[in-house]
Amino acid sequence: MFYHVKELQYRAKPERPDALYAKKLQEILGGQFGEISVALQYLFQGWGARGDGKYKDLLMDTGAEELAHVEMLATMIARLLENAPVGDLEVAAKDPVLSAVLGGMNPQHAIVSGLGALPVDSVGNPWTASYINASGNLLADFRMNLTYESHGRLQAVRLYEQTTDRGVKDMLSWLIARDTMHQNQWLAAIAELEAKENVVVPSTFPRELEKQEVSYTLFNYSAGNESAKGRWAYGTSMDGCGVFNYVENPVPFGKKPKLKPAPPYIHDTPLSVLRTNVHPDPDTM
Amino acid sequence: MFYHVKELQYRAKPERPDALYAKKLQEILGGQFGEISVALQYLFQGWGARGDGKYKDLLMDTGAEELAHVEMLATMIARLLENAPVGDLEVAAKDPVLSAVLGGMNPQHAIVSGLGALPVDSVGNPWTASYINASGNLLADFRMNLTYESHGRLQAVRLYEQTTDRGVKDMLSWLIARDTMHQNQWLAAIAELEAKENVVVPSTFPRELEKQEVSYTLFNYSAGNESAKGRWAYGTSMDGCGVFNYVENPVPFGKKPKLKPAPPYIHDTPLSVLRTNVHPDPDTM
Amino acid sequence: MFYHVKELQYRAKPERPDALYAKKLQEILGGQFGEISVALQYLFQGWGARGDGKYKDLLMDTGAEELAHVEMLATMIARLLENAPVGDLEVAAKDPVLSAVLGGMNPQHAIVSGLGALPVDSVGNPWTASYINASGNLLADFRMNLTYESHGRLQAVRLYEQTTDRGVKDMLSWLIARDTMHQNQWLAAIAELEAKENVVVPSTFPRELEKQEVSYTLFNYSAGNESAKGRWAYGTSMDGCGVFNYVENPVPFGKKPKLKPAPPYIHDTPLSVLRTNVHPDPDTM
Amino acid sequence: MFYHVKELQYRAKPERPDALYAKKLQEILGGQFGEISVALQYLFQGWGARGDGKYKDLLMDTGAEELAHVEMLATMIARLLENAPVGDLEVAAKDPVLSAVLGGMNPQHAIVSGLGALPVDSVGNPWTASYINASGNLLADFRMNLTYESHGRLQAVRLYEQTTDRGVKDMLSWLIARDTMHQNQWLAAIAELEAKENVVVPSTFPRELEKQEVSYTLFNYSAGNESAKGRWAYGTSMDGCGVFNYVENPVPFGKKPKLKPAPPYIHDTPLSVLRTNVHPDPDTM
Amino acid sequence: MFYHVKELQYRAKPERPDALYAKKLQEILGGQFGEISVALQYLFQGWGARGDGKYKDLLMDTGAEELAHVEMLATMIARLLENAPVGDLEVAAKDPVLSAVLGGMNPQHAIVSGLGALPVDSVGNPWTASYINASGNLLADFRMNLTYESHGRLQAVRLYEQTTDRGVKDMLSWLIARDTMHQNQWLAAIAELEAKENVVVPSTFPRELEKQEVSYTLFNYSAGNESAKGRWAYGTSMDGCGVFNYVENPVPFGKKPKLKPAPPYIHDTPLSVLRTNVHPDPDTM
Amino acid sequence: MFYHVKELQYRAKPERPDALYAKKLQEILGGQFGEISVALQYLFQGWGARGDGKYKDLLMDTGAEELAHVEMLATMIARLLENAPVGDLEVAAKDPVLSAVLGGMNPQHAIVSGLGALPVDSVGNPWTASYINASGNLLADFRMNLTYESHGRLQAVRLYEQTTDRGVKDMLSWLIARDTMHQNQWLAAIAELEAKENVVVPSTFPRELEKQEVSYTLFNYSAGNESAKGRWAYGTSMDGCGVFNYVENPVPFGKKPKLKPAPPYIHDTPLSVLRTNVHPDPDTM
Repeated sequence: MFYHVKELQYRAKPERPDALYAKKLQEILGGQFGEISVALQYLFQGWGARGDGKYKDLLMDTGAEELAHVEMLATMIARLLENAPVGDLEVAAKDPVLSAVLGGMNPQHAIVSGLGALPVDSVGNPWTASYINASGNLLADFRMNLTYESHGRLQAVRLYEQTTDRGVKDMLSWLIARDTMHQNQWLAAIAELEAKENVVVPSTFPRELEKQEVSYTLFNYSAGNESAKGRWAYGTSMDGCGVFNYVENPVPFGKKPKLKPAPPYIHDTPLSVLRTNVHPDPDTM
Repeated sequence: MFYHVKELQYRAKPERPDALYAKKLQEILGGQFGEISVALQYLFQGWGARGDGKYKDLLMDTGAEELAHVEMLATMIARLLENAPVGDLEVAAKDPVLSAVLGGMNPQHAIVSGLGALPVDSVGNPWTASYINASGNLLADFRMNLTYESHGRLQAVRLYEQTTDRGVKDMLSWLIARDTMHQNQWLAAIAELEAKENVVVPSTFPRELEKQEVSYTLFNYSAGNESAKGRWAYGTSMDGCGVFNYVENPVPFGKKPKLKPAPPYIHDTPLSVLRTNVHPDPDTM
Repeated sequence: MFYHVKELQYRAKPERPDALYAKKLQEILGGQFGEISVALQYLFQGWGARGDGKYKDLLMDTGAEELAHVEMLATMIARLLENAPVGDLEVAAKDPVLSAVLGGMNPQHAIVSGLGALPVDSVGNPWTASYINASGNLLADFRMNLTYESHGRLQAVRLYEQTTDRGVKDMLSWLIARDTMHQNQWLAAIAELEAKENVVVPSTFPRELEKQEVSYTLFNYSAGNESAKGRWAYGTSMDGCGVFNYVENPVPFGKKPKLKPAPPYIHDTPLSVLRTNVHPDPDTM
Repeated sequence: MFYHVKELQYRAKPERPDALYAKKLQEILGGQFGEISVALQYLFQGWGARGDGKYKDLLMDTGAEELAHVEMLATMIARLLENAPVGDLEVAAKDPVLSAVLGGMNPQHAIVSGLGALPVDSVGNPWTASYINASGNLLADFRMNLTYESHGRLQAVRLYEQTTDRGVKDMLSWLIARDTMHQNQWLAAIAELEAKENVVVPSTFPRELEKQEVSYTLFNYSAGNESAKGRWAYGTSMDGCGVFNYVENPVPFGKKPKLKPAPPYIHDTPLSVLRTNVHPDPDTM
Repeated sequence: MFYHVKELQYRAKPERPDALYAKKLQEILGGQFGEISVALQYLFQGWGARGDGKYKDLLMDTGAEELAHVEMLATMIARLLENAPVGDLEVAAKDPVLSAVLGGMNPQHAIVSGLGALPVDSVGNPWTASYINASGNLLADFRMNLTYESHGRLQAVRLYEQTTDRGVKDMLSWLIARDTMHQNQWLAAIAELEAKENVVVPSTFPRELEKQEVSYTLFNYSAGNESAKGRWAYGTSMDGCGVFNYVENPVPFGKKPKLKPAPPYIHDTPLSVLRTNVHPDPDTM
Repeated sequence: MFYHVKELQYRAKPERPDALYAKKLQEILGGQFGEISVALQYLFQGWGARGDGKYKDLLMDTGAEELAHVEMLATMIARLLENAPVGDLEVAAKDPVLSAVLGGMNPQHAIVSGLGALPVDSVGNPWTASYINASGNLLADFRMNLTYESHGRLQAVRLYEQTTDRGVKDMLSWLIARDTMHQNQWLAAIAELEAKENVVVPSTFPRELEKQEVSYTLFNYSAGNESAKGRWAYGTSMDGCGVFNYVENPVPFGKKPKLKPAPPYIHDTPLSVLRTNVHPDPDTM
């Protein structure tokens, strides 16, 4: 259950409106790695967590915080949109900033949301739950969380570079710091789990059931052997269970597949038509 | 540029058709963490890589391999669908397996693809590029890749548990082994980059520009302090640049936001209407 | 900013697992009118509200509550999935319930979420922000909210009819009651705004700027005049500003449009090709 | 069955081309509340209507009209795009209007549709049927219809403010007037149904089956009690069946949920790993 | 402008309800090649047609007809859903047909649409405008139309095979016949345009501006030379402007690309990190 | 299985960066008819092909080639984005080109991909598998392929017109030439299949099972009889099996449908409410 307080986690006030930047800032609100993504991803992972209270609590702590970040960004975007120009381009043509804003702002900020934030990314794609995941396997999930905080901080930093507004930069410096913490915390949780299990997810599948002869092999499917120089091509594998090896000229292990004709009720191209061109494929598996 | 050979990387032949399992197997072909996702993600990361040949080559090696996995799964699914029952339920009612298949198979396997694989997941959602990412920052991207191989192997293992078909299990044992390698290789590449940079992505943003006082703080936004027991709540941070600390009762750092009214041309609820209920909000920031 | 407590708003425990019902119940979690929709819709409306504290507070109160409903449903679904059968259909064939479950459950509940809830609807479509809206105009938004609570309660009631599990029914009876309240509350807020403004949204657009001769006219575009018998076809209009009238045989007010040819750089079908068939269209506007 | 006449319901001719405005105008053609949405929503509601001819006829009348509005907007957009500049930005740089148009127009209007309207919104999202609904419950559906006409008119009014073109304004004044009618007509139909049933949808669910002790309660989940001042917090409820009450400090009614571990074949984080941190949670429900 | 009559173009009445078949039949209503697709595709092509009345009229004739087909299918589906079982699986377990239906029907048919048709395909994906196109180039568009009628008829035929209901088959026999006509009509229109222009779309691009040395070349990128036996590998090309030729061992025409490093404000992996592994790539273009 | 070589099929190097054009060029990379679409469509058709090696080989040849085109476009776009301006609009205002670029470029090219190509179209919609199809019926599929090459070449030509950069034009002249070949090759394959089967897809459905009386009829559903002048309205049909005929005033063949009320557990509008308005509909079928 959730309680809301009206105060923001941190202030979200720009020096001046900037409708074009408002559009860009949508990316870390409603984009793939935006705050809606992390909020809902952590909450769903927490709600689905079967077991230890420590990890579940961490997920719920952080999920609740990310909701506060959605709120901060929604507030900032609404303020960046204040007095957004929405008028006729001919009229605005004398002011180059104005005409670039008219050309570049997200028109839905005026037409749809009435100068409020939208649950969309910087090009206007609506947020979709296909961005997120909660699998029940904490190591897999925490890796995804680390990924999202890495991309999230990267995008916040890129946005920091794209403005001179001190109010915006102030808020971003908060979000970037929190992403630093969240990367650190998922790294800590991952380290703990990797120490207890193994680095390969899931750790519970019996290794003898996998085709172990190719579990540590790098196949060189792209010409050139620069990749042979990497740590992944020689020495003990990262999971400590094997030795990396490199295959310069990989060949197929399977045969050429040949599918049986479909039954008549499927109405594929009839075999009689194909048969006029048929030639033997003796090597098919 | 790509060359194709007709032989499969590894064999993909079930013991017997199983239309319901064909539907499930679609998950690791066209789902969020399926082979289309990793193939296109690695290729886009490789095509966008600005710089070192080693990492780019690794991306292209693996991207090309994942295309071969798409091919294996497409072949397997087509074979699992052979002779799929598509008829009238009343007629099939006498055979419980048949009627469960009729109820449970993906109807598009008969109507749309004519007993071939579809570029969709196990419930029929078409694959979407919103699943994937290539950011230009290799550490961020390799973490995403590790995530996808972790979830991918997890899902392959879960599917392994859901069949007794030895042909299917044989193919899955190959894919699971390759996921073992790919987790290992991204772990190796990540370790290399983390050693050269820092564990926090991006490593190039000056730390003094972030709000460092909250860069290592765990805020307890979910009642209960189980999360205080984790490695993330005390001791040196994972990036070696700070000390974790835990705030049991976090308070807001910002004030209650108050937005200015929208201009008249936006046609929000008019202020005159709202004003009849207005009461002072002196504490807003 | 949000605080979370671990306790549920209301209990969410089924009598027994039921994987097929878990799939259905996803509709009111992650469907068009599900709890994610209302939670995020109310929060975005609240965050974007420019003005009166009373309405904004109501939106935040209710938005926070809906998050608690997402949590209850996620918990219930995870419990309904406990021990879900995921095995081989041939093996399960002797038990008709088991085989129907295997045919009918959402395969992602086993493969993707590991027996947890998914942010999807009852057929597996991921939740999308294109379901929701926050316009800045409170009357328009509250009508949308009333709509969502109406459909939400309708769907909860339909789901109530589809189970005999007393634990599920108990939880649904809570959600249905809350939907009763939420319909009532939006009705109250709508009545207040309609009394102050007018029933037509937006109330601020000068009526003389619209084509008033058709502002109260029902055009009979579907043969048969049953619709002439409705209140909407005669008498004073609901906004009190006009009189409804009914046009049995509506004719066009515009002319046949004729578009100019596209410029050559667009490479449409060339005019020379079309011209061989040209015939005069003198009546185009 | 449908018949088409070539004449437009009302004229749709701008004074001059304006490719940027063409992009914006797409919102009320192919956006969430655009004409495609209302056309298909009313038609699907009409086709699914089980019963009274009066409501069904009204739905079909209005659905057919909305198709005419799609046609008007498609025509207007095609004309606004005539002679759209699509060339090189360097060349256009001397004309600020031209360069703003080149920066701001929807590139698909040139590349994809060849200067015709697209079935998309103002940022280019393709229209999706997830916008609409037909539930079989007329009161729920008519509320949705009223919502769509409210948002539709709001957006048309906002677009009216964003142009000085008299031809565009003329067409919009028609659409705005029709939205006035359609809001009025759904209000009339709603009033009729509410009088016969009850304001709570669905009216057919026995009230004693819902958890009536919370059917009229406002829980204050967002700090601050401004919402206590609203009509929804005291007095007889809008459905006449209860009395609103306000709970300032709501507490949970449920307990902390604890989920059982997943079975081994799901390969979640193994319990042995979690157990090293396990601590008792005696109060879980 | 459109007029609707209540009568159906052709009857749409099944012998008996069949909720599972109703789900399947959704494919040709709301799927990729369903009736919504063709209706809106033809109408958008007609509305965007710049020029000849003959083609535009044909598009509008057929677009209006397809709306009538949507109506027939919506009616048929609603009837197939009558008395759909929606209850408890345990209760239904004694009847294998019932339990297969409960497992296999689209749950939204009960929960969302109240036993009406949905604007979705056979697995529940909402119809999306990304299925369709109107380009302004009639030959390109008519080829797309021919494609849609080909796939549409194929799917209708496959559905015909999957039922024994004479009412359903009767309606499908109508739709299949109309698809026969529509394939014929687009073939006729295509033949006319190809005769006037050329078979290559667009015909207006000067051939000397394309890299003509590869305009008739088949590159053998997939090992094995079966494709050398096709008409496309030798002889005069279909457009009469060249001679097909076959390249058995195609080599790259370009060089290995090398991208410049990104500017610092993008925060990619820093060059200093990459440089430790740098090795010369002299052959890049 | 696939092998990759680092060299490009053809060079992809612009004369100068152009971030706005990079956005546009995304259309033929990740749009509906872009290279991802054709690559995956041909590969899925090839993998699903049941039968003749000639057609399957052609599909795999061309599918592999289209992957090379994705690579060329990704390379070109990354180069067009080099040094893209991403800064503050106020600062850039003195340079009209710069401000138009800032207004018009895809913000995700800076924030998300770090100046690399994205798997999206020219307005930023992520590529989706709902664009493509593989049906198992080769004639249907080859018609779809011809359509995609027609639209693909049309869009490439339109993009050729929108730049003066000789490097871009050079690459486009290659792609346009390849589209010429691919249109020719699918035309050749179609001609071969049409000669063996019949022009109507699928050719295997017994004609006597369709409602043949309307298999060659053009119904005039859009007022005006321009369409009567087309080849499709008279003479022998294209399939040689019938004679086209034209019906100027088409009437319904079906009756007005009347649906039975839904069962009570669906909670539609209750019949008692509707009944107060009921009037007889004696003519319903």
